[in-house]
Amino acid sequence: MEAQNTAQPHVIIIGAGFGGLEAAKHLGNKPVRVTVIDRTNYHLFQPLLYQVATAALSPADIAAPVRAILGKYQNIEVLLGDVKSVDVAARRVHTTEKEIAYDYLIIATGARHSYFGHDEWEKLAPGLKSLEDAIEIRRRILLAFEFAEKTSDEKERAAAMTFVVIGGGPTGVEMAGAIAEIARETLAKDFRHIDPEKSRVILIEGEKRVLAGFPEDLSASAQKQLEQLRVEVRLGVHAENLTENGLEVAGEFIPCRVKIWAAGNMASPVGKTLGVPVDRAGRIVVQDDLTIPGHPEVQVIGDLANFTSPKNGKPLPGVSAVAIQQGRHAAHNIQHMIDGDKPQRFSYWDKGSMATIGRNKAVADLNFVHFSGFPAWLAWLFIHVLYLVGFRNRIAVLFQWGWAYLTFNKGARLITRNFQAEQRSLG
Amino acid sequence: MEAQNTAQPHVIIIGAGFGGLEAAKHLGNKPVRVTVIDRTNYHLFQPLLYQVATAALSPADIAAPVRAILGKYQNIEVLLGDVKSVDVAARRVHTTEKEIAYDYLIIATGARHSYFGHDEWEKLAPGLKSLEDAIEIRRRILLAFEFAEKTSDEKERAAAMTFVVIGGGPTGVEMAGAIAEIARETLAKDFRHIDPEKSRVILIEGEKRVLAGFPEDLSASAQKQLEQLRVEVRLGVHAENLTENGLEVAGEFIPCRVKIWAAGNMASPVGKTLGVPVDRAGRIVVQDDLTIPGHPEVQVIGDLANFTSPKNGKPLPGVSAVAIQQGRHAAHNIQHMIDGDKPQRFSYWDKGSMATIGRNKAVADLNFVHFSGFPAWLAWLFIHVLYLVGFRNRIAVLFQWGWAYLTFNKGARLITRNFQAEQRSLG
Repeated sequence: MEAQNTAQPHVIIIGAGFGGLEAAKHLGNKPVRVTVIDRTNYHLFQPLLYQVATAALSPADIAAPVRAILGKYQNIEVLLGDVKSVDVAARRVHTTEKEIAYDYLIIATGARHSYFGHDEWEKLAPGLKSLEDAIEIRRRILLAFEFAEKTSDEKERAAAMTFVVIGGGPTGVEMAGAIAEIARETLAKDFRHIDPEKSRVILIEGEKRVLAGFPEDLSASAQKQLEQLRVEVRLGVHAENLTENGLEVAGEFIPCRVKIWAAGNMASPVGKTLGVPVDRAGRIVVQDDLTIPGHPEVQVIGDLANFTSPKNGKPLPGVSAVAIQQGRHAAHNIQHMIDGDKPQRFSYWDKGSMATIGRNKAVADLNFVHFSGFPAWLAWLFIHVLYLVGFRNRIAVLFQWGWAYLTFNKGARLITRNFQAEQRSLG
Repeated sequence: MEAQNTAQPHVIIIGAGFGGLEAAKHLGNKPVRVTVIDRTNYHLFQPLLYQVATAALSPADIAAPVRAILGKYQNIEVLLGDVKSVDVAARRVHTTEKEIAYDYLIIATGARHSYFGHDEWEKLAPGLKSLEDAIEIRRRILLAFEFAEKTSDEKERAAAMTFVVIGGGPTGVEMAGAIAEIARETLAKDFRHIDPEKSRVILIEGEKRVLAGFPEDLSASAQKQLEQLRVEVRLGVHAENLTENGLEVAGEFIPCRVKIWAAGNMASPVGKTLGVPVDRAGRIVVQDDLTIPGHPEVQVIGDLANFTSPKNGKPLPGVSAVAIQQGRHAAHNIQHMIDGDKPQRFSYWDKGSMATIGRNKAVADLNFVHFSGFPAWLAWLFIHVLYLVGFRNRIAVLFQWGWAYLTFNKGARLITRNFQAEQRSLG
């Protein structure tokens, strides 16, 4: 507990994801007052969220309290709050509870999934952005097997054992691979009336290849690795007419209970309150220094920003590496402005990208070299453990992975309900 | 996946707590068909639930999938289901979904908290029986500190930093100690506007001493250890007039946001459907062989059973040791009956009891010797790790405890909401 120096400029950072947290760290113990506002009390290591959804890790393994991460910086204050809008002219942030004035603002509120106008599909096919999403998906997957074990209707059983993942980007590929693994290995001996190995996992992708953001050879390799896990990959087709009982793909109705959405993103709604141009996905079109036109004191970073890459004229991808580099840059820009200088041009150093498919299965694009399978998987493992925030989590995750690797067992197979539902069931 | 031999007698075990699981293991690979029915898909290690409620452990650390524990016994089938009633005459169990016939039945559905006719208090002061309860209590405790940090109203802040635990049995003592520790140590440096060390933790007990089931010297020692953690222990008083803003104790209104119920138990409602006498707490009064009158094929064990101890004429306490020994005995009784013998008289071997208060703080009653403080705490640690079901959990818990002990840090400080609430908040 320390008082802040109110004579110093006040920086507000909205969002404690990869970008916001990196910006905060770089402003830690600098001559500014910083307020970090987030809707949750933890930083989420989103790249491993699919492992919570498939029962390999616990929520606390991939989430670290924001206060614990930033507690050592006396000039940083953390506020649990929901930002509704930003008044750029008055330099004020409006949360559901109060208004807070800023001198400099970094907006890093990220994105959620987009259902392309079909918001009613969210309940039928949850996406994977939050811990709550992951726990819900885990619940649905495990309950589907429980239902299949209980029912004596062959059609219902087949539908319960069919899992459809919509979207063949990194999240979709990871989810499809992980569901196939849990069915073929972890649950193989758990049931008496069904054989989880016979589950169908179907991955639907509108493009002509999975991992469309990757080089073509790696897309082909990822598809091959998915097929080794007996995932049915359907390319160039779209999900239509979702219901509780299934969905339609290329005119065919696929009966299935569990559908998972990994098909599209929509930027956080806060962006639209700034009054500056946004793109089709709701992202704010930022200038080459990350600021918005006419307001050098406002910077937008991470998944909320549309930053045109000078290399190919396309927006930078929504990955953690972009957010982290932009967070650091935004913090430096603020120091420049305080010193009377202009904000500097941002440039992204692309170190490559990776996606994992399963045990010993992955693809890695390090720009100068592409690789697949076991070496790519090892590299993926190494990078992800390295970047996991907080020493404890790194060890805990390594331990759980080691255990799962040796035993094919996943420890977090809990079907939990919410407190209200629990109360109701007490009657 | 293996078919069961339908010519063998069918044993149904309701409840996969300590008693039900022990009975199932002892019937594993024996010439009977066994069906274990539970409302959740996991066995919960309840003695450590308070550690989930106070952010020291993750749900998956103290819960193991029932299927994973019993999967190796080919004659055991696991059913996720909610038992509504038992038709003792027709020998059928009714779940919400179907009816199942049995030859032998073991009922081990345990207990929930009782609000002594004030069911409306459950929302105000949740008890601690399920993982959902624990996650909800964790959420409330952490949110109270977040609220205190944000508010500028001194009275509201004081109320948010006052935690009242109602009931001074083992659960109440553990919760009060753990909340005091999280406030004084874990959260000490996390906030800017409040000093969590200044939180008040109040423990209310109707009897004249805490841990009334323990010898008097240990009650006194437990109280002293609680007071070392600056827990305010109020004896011989009752909680009255609970509201969202506080509660009344001995005529005084104590403003407080977070109230936790650890005051009483009520047996699971299934017991009342048997048509045999139950005691005031809803427990079934069983015969000295654990069966119910007139139905040797029906045995009741664990917290649901009122088994009169021949030593003192009182019912055996609702602790895991009783449930485990009764579970084993019930399994043996079934084997006797199949062999044409009568069920045997049960006798409880009381090895003693323990309660923990905090880091280095506990009491242990091993009958021939009583001890307190660090040695009792070490003994508690040893026993609890030893009994934790599943090798993985044992290691994971040991690791988390070691980490917490060395760093005073608790890793699972997550405020999670439920999926529906998450969806609503997206607007």
